[in-house]
Amino acid sequence: MSSHKRNVYLKTIPIPEAVEKARTALDRDMLIRSVFVPVHEAAGRVLSEAVFARFSSPTFHSAAMDGYAVNAKTTFGAREGSPFELIEGRDCFAVNTGNPLPDGCDAVIMIENVTRAGDNAIAIEAPAFPWQHVRRIGEDIVATELLFPQNHRISPYDIGALLSAGIWDVYVWEPVRIAIIPTGDEVLDFTKRPTPKAGQVVESNSQVLAALARQHGCEVRRIPPVADKPEELQNAVSDCLASDAHIVIICAGSSAGSKDFTRSTMEAFGEVLVHGISAMPGKPSLLGVCKGKLVAGAPGYPVSAVVCFEELLAPLICWLGRQDHQARKTVPVELTRKAPSKLGVEEFLRLSVGKVDDKYVATPLARGAGCITSVSKAQALTRIPVQSEGLEQGGTVPAELMVPEAELDNILVCVGSHDNTLDILADELMGFTPPIRLTSSHVGSMGGILAIKSGSCHFAGAHLFDPDTGDYNFPFLQRYLPDAEITLVNLAIRHQGFIVPKGNPKGIRSIHDLADGSIRFLNRQRGAGTRILFDHHLRDAGINPTQVAGYDKEEFTHMAVAVNVLTGAADTGLGIYAAAKALGLDFVPLARERYDLIIPNRFMDTAGAQAVMRLLASPTFHARIEALGGYETTLTGRTMQPGTGLGD
Amino acid sequence: MSSHKRNVYLKTIPIPEAVEKARTALDRDMLIRSVFVPVHEAAGRVLSEAVFARFSSPTFHSAAMDGYAVNAKTTFGAREGSPFELIEGRDCFAVNTGNPLPDGCDAVIMIENVTRAGDNAIAIEAPAFPWQHVRRIGEDIVATELLFPQNHRISPYDIGALLSAGIWDVYVWEPVRIAIIPTGDEVLDFTKRPTPKAGQVVESNSQVLAALARQHGCEVRRIPPVADKPEELQNAVSDCLASDAHIVIICAGSSAGSKDFTRSTMEAFGEVLVHGISAMPGKPSLLGVCKGKLVAGAPGYPVSAVVCFEELLAPLICWLGRQDHQARKTVPVELTRKAPSKLGVEEFLRLSVGKVDDKYVATPLARGAGCITSVSKAQALTRIPVQSEGLEQGGTVPAELMVPEAELDNILVCVGSHDNTLDILADELMGFTPPIRLTSSHVGSMGGILAIKSGSCHFAGAHLFDPDTGDYNFPFLQRYLPDAEITLVNLAIRHQGFIVPKGNPKGIRSIHDLADGSIRFLNRQRGAGTRILFDHHLRDAGINPTQVAGYDKEEFTHMAVAVNVLTGAADTGLGIYAAAKALGLDFVPLARERYDLIIPNRFMDTAGAQAVMRLLASPTFHARIEALGGYETTLTGRTMQPGTGLGD
Repeated sequence: MSSHKRNVYLKTIPIPEAVEKARTALDRDMLIRSVFVPVHEAAGRVLSEAVFARFSSPTFHSAAMDGYAVNAKTTFGAREGSPFELIEGRDCFAVNTGNPLPDGCDAVIMIENVTRAGDNAIAIEAPAFPWQHVRRIGEDIVATELLFPQNHRISPYDIGALLSAGIWDVYVWEPVRIAIIPTGDEVLDFTKRPTPKAGQVVESNSQVLAALARQHGCEVRRIPPVADKPEELQNAVSDCLASDAHIVIICAGSSAGSKDFTRSTMEAFGEVLVHGISAMPGKPSLLGVCKGKLVAGAPGYPVSAVVCFEELLAPLICWLGRQDHQARKTVPVELTRKAPSKLGVEEFLRLSVGKVDDKYVATPLARGAGCITSVSKAQALTRIPVQSEGLEQGGTVPAELMVPEAELDNILVCVGSHDNTLDILADELMGFTPPIRLTSSHVGSMGGILAIKSGSCHFAGAHLFDPDTGDYNFPFLQRYLPDAEITLVNLAIRHQGFIVPKGNPKGIRSIHDLADGSIRFLNRQRGAGTRILFDHHLRDAGINPTQVAGYDKEEFTHMAVAVNVLTGAADTGLGIYAAAKALGLDFVPLARERYDLIIPNRFMDTAGAQAVMRLLASPTFHARIEALGGYETTLTGRTMQPGTGLGD
Repeated sequence: MSSHKRNVYLKTIPIPEAVEKARTALDRDMLIRSVFVPVHEAAGRVLSEAVFARFSSPTFHSAAMDGYAVNAKTTFGAREGSPFELIEGRDCFAVNTGNPLPDGCDAVIMIENVTRAGDNAIAIEAPAFPWQHVRRIGEDIVATELLFPQNHRISPYDIGALLSAGIWDVYVWEPVRIAIIPTGDEVLDFTKRPTPKAGQVVESNSQVLAALARQHGCEVRRIPPVADKPEELQNAVSDCLASDAHIVIICAGSSAGSKDFTRSTMEAFGEVLVHGISAMPGKPSLLGVCKGKLVAGAPGYPVSAVVCFEELLAPLICWLGRQDHQARKTVPVELTRKAPSKLGVEEFLRLSVGKVDDKYVATPLARGAGCITSVSKAQALTRIPVQSEGLEQGGTVPAELMVPEAELDNILVCVGSHDNTLDILADELMGFTPPIRLTSSHVGSMGGILAIKSGSCHFAGAHLFDPDTGDYNFPFLQRYLPDAEITLVNLAIRHQGFIVPKGNPKGIRSIHDLADGSIRFLNRQRGAGTRILFDHHLRDAGINPTQVAGYDKEEFTHMAVAVNVLTGAADTGLGIYAAAKALGLDFVPLARERYDLIIPNRFMDTAGAQAVMRLLASPTFHARIEALGGYETTLTGRTMQPGTGLGD
């Protein structure tokens, strides 16, 4: 294949098999040593051997209360109503909490239960029973007993037990040390704060993996990026193998392309154990053992690299550190969209999850292995099994939580049309105590109405114009949700128009300029309010969609349309002013429209909806919307009634 | 009250009210500032303001696969069976993954799907559709869009998104800084590795609180212990208030005793907000505000200090750091014992929890506020409500998990008689992959049999001698569990005898020496096999229990008996050789006995039971038992049959 020399994949194997191969090939006892550390710095560390108590705690019988120490036997004559006297220094002794019991004493009478009876005597009206209010020797810890077994992870509480038992230092497993080598001719070193040109990307995978590894207690060292040259990579790997690292991760170059040198480098220093796992993303992962150390080839796509770390390396790091690799908590979630999948491969699908009514609803996030935001936005992931062709909309699947389950209770799920003010809403909601997280899925206004219908969101954003009535949203709700008990609250009035390059080089002035097919237009997806608006204006202008070049090309957000215009991929597209302004583009106004939030009444009293209503009424929030440009806030926060249109 | 000057409690208030008082009194915006930190060091930090993307990602349309870039339109003629030629450099361009698309191209054909057609041409048998295998501009991130809202905690994944978007530094909330001042005339500075004498304790609370605070992302500074002198404490507090600390914690002295100066010190610098919470342990907690900073008085008892931190300070630390204070995960657990409680106070009860069959069983741990091991051994806690007089045995209560729920699956629950070999078993089980945790509750042999009966343990340890048959355990099982399908496996044969001080000062030679009441004996609790053995030997010797001084004094473990002998609290008690040896005491043998594990057959195939069986068969394990002294391993690991006695 001309200059393309391609490696050949080893056969892909299931993830558990890959992990097991590495476990079998590594000599854990040789690789990870035991170190002696001070107890008060040992929280989170894992004991490499059992610890036995040196001291008992307490080391003496001690008063558990402020009061008087006595020998219980001497108090048996005390009765309610007939005070019984004890002489201080003979029958009883004042003690504070923590004081040792004087010889012969075996009980403490609380200060609250005595009365004075002269200068050196007290009186009581109830007998003491033996050992009352006394902490006995060894009550907490008995010298020589096992405090903690080997491989126990030391908790903050354990530090108290250890110090109380006279243990000042403990043997723990050393942290797993990882060296990470980013590679690639196209990657830019983020430490140099670069501005990428076409063909270049900012190297960031090393830092994602480093942060994940640190969460697992690892120590991480990053090597500056290495070019796609076999000798350079070999030198870097050789240095890392000679260092104190236990694991070397080579970022990118793990596949079978002409510039993928990870495998051959691994072979130069040791043995390749795994090349290819039957999972997607993450398939071109490599595992090998070189000079007794684990070497991993993480794929270059960020999501693939994350899968490689979490599925292969994390279990191995736990095993090296003698810790159980705990599966994420799994909850059943209902899918808001279908998710087709390839037969023969296990697919990881990231999900945006929220709790609506009493069920978890999950929206699949972008599938591309290149979308790191599909991971950073996810609350959970689900695995589509090898034998499955995909998941059905409305189906319930198990989802592994990537955030604490309690966090899902503070998520507001918004589905519907995309608008930049939702970002401001999201930001402001996080200022509440506790912070409220807004997740919004951009599926167009009609998608939002359908989500309300299926009960899979807390509210929907819509800007559906009905030409017959001149009204917004209500005619559509009456058609699709005739019986729903809902409230419509206006978020903003916004300006829609043609997003065009700076200076409007094609001189677009109105929709009529699109009629001759010379303008490369970019459309929004079916169901989007912006598309409906566009269709309405086309009809009004007597233009057939087939006349418009690019009518079939679809994007899902205003910003995506603007980006395409910015880069020249299209001459124009319909969108909001804020999107044009954000990218320094020009804007040819077409229409004003109402963007409303549709909130089912059953949610109106929830903390989330109340927070939204408070923000919509706040002048600060109005000011932030106005500052975006292309918005009017005259209706913002008002409850809408049918037939009011723009309220002009 | 002579020299005792007592403070007066403020009225105790519920915990949420106490937290709210502190929130209201603190000016969070003044106290916690925003700092600018490099993104790659910001994992786990919390954004103090929203972050918007500077770059799109990708910044160019790029090849998502190795192959050939084409303009899709030019390929529409390709059909299966009729190869369609593309000239390199004109119709198609070789690209590697990540390369920018050449001008005019909008699709990539995978290398696997082309064949060569001469030196500078390829052939395809299927058309490309527009944008196939292309990562479009902004597919992941669109410049100017909101990446993360304010108060968002940065995850490892987020670092990838931030760097990809050209964000090198972010504004985050500074960590909450805490100064901890241990106090008390009786406390010893652990950094000096002291040996406590009567009346002294090793100061450890500061380190427990420090480690807990670090888990919450705080920076902690510990002041050396301060004596119970008002001026010294005032100086220390004054220094901390002048430092950069946001919170000052004074350990101990928070109550109302004659040596409790925390409250008066707080009053000297500011205002006391809370003195006393309606909770136990933890009641004498103090909260105040001094010079705009939060000052807390944590009670001196370790469990009380933990409650003060977790219930009062942790929610405030989260609030200061703009984070939601997430409640622990709660699961229903079945109590193995009743837990009486005082009316009028919320009581925190720590629980040892394991999963037996499909339910969580929970054994209440020691109640004393002085028992730090009751926290370090706990997997969960339950709150006994203010209006409750306690919890019933067998009742189901909600328990807040202190460990990940998955960890409960790897816990083996052992209930029954105490034996030192169980510590060795616990240590060895943690050597398995994954580690298996053994929790053992010491309730005597009969308690173990009853736990088997109620299904609240995985196995029980018992050494019940039946004088009528000369056999062990089986006669009792036939009486109490006639229908149970169980397996008895021997753990060890052990030696029981009188634990006596070094040199045996009272010259105890046999049980007859206890008959005249001159020897202060210490007994084991009812149901303990050791007590049954003692009763049997008393009967044999014709001694009435009332003749034995101390017959009514009970301890729950061999080690507790030994400690009492060591300190002179008793002259002798019956126990195992290992307990005497551990504390350097002497031992007068009385009998050999069989200590068996009773395992319900339904558990025999579980990983836990299999691990136990493997250990019992292992010579290494036998050697560790033998090394304790007073044990024989001739039967260890053998399945026992009725009527075999000691197998001699």
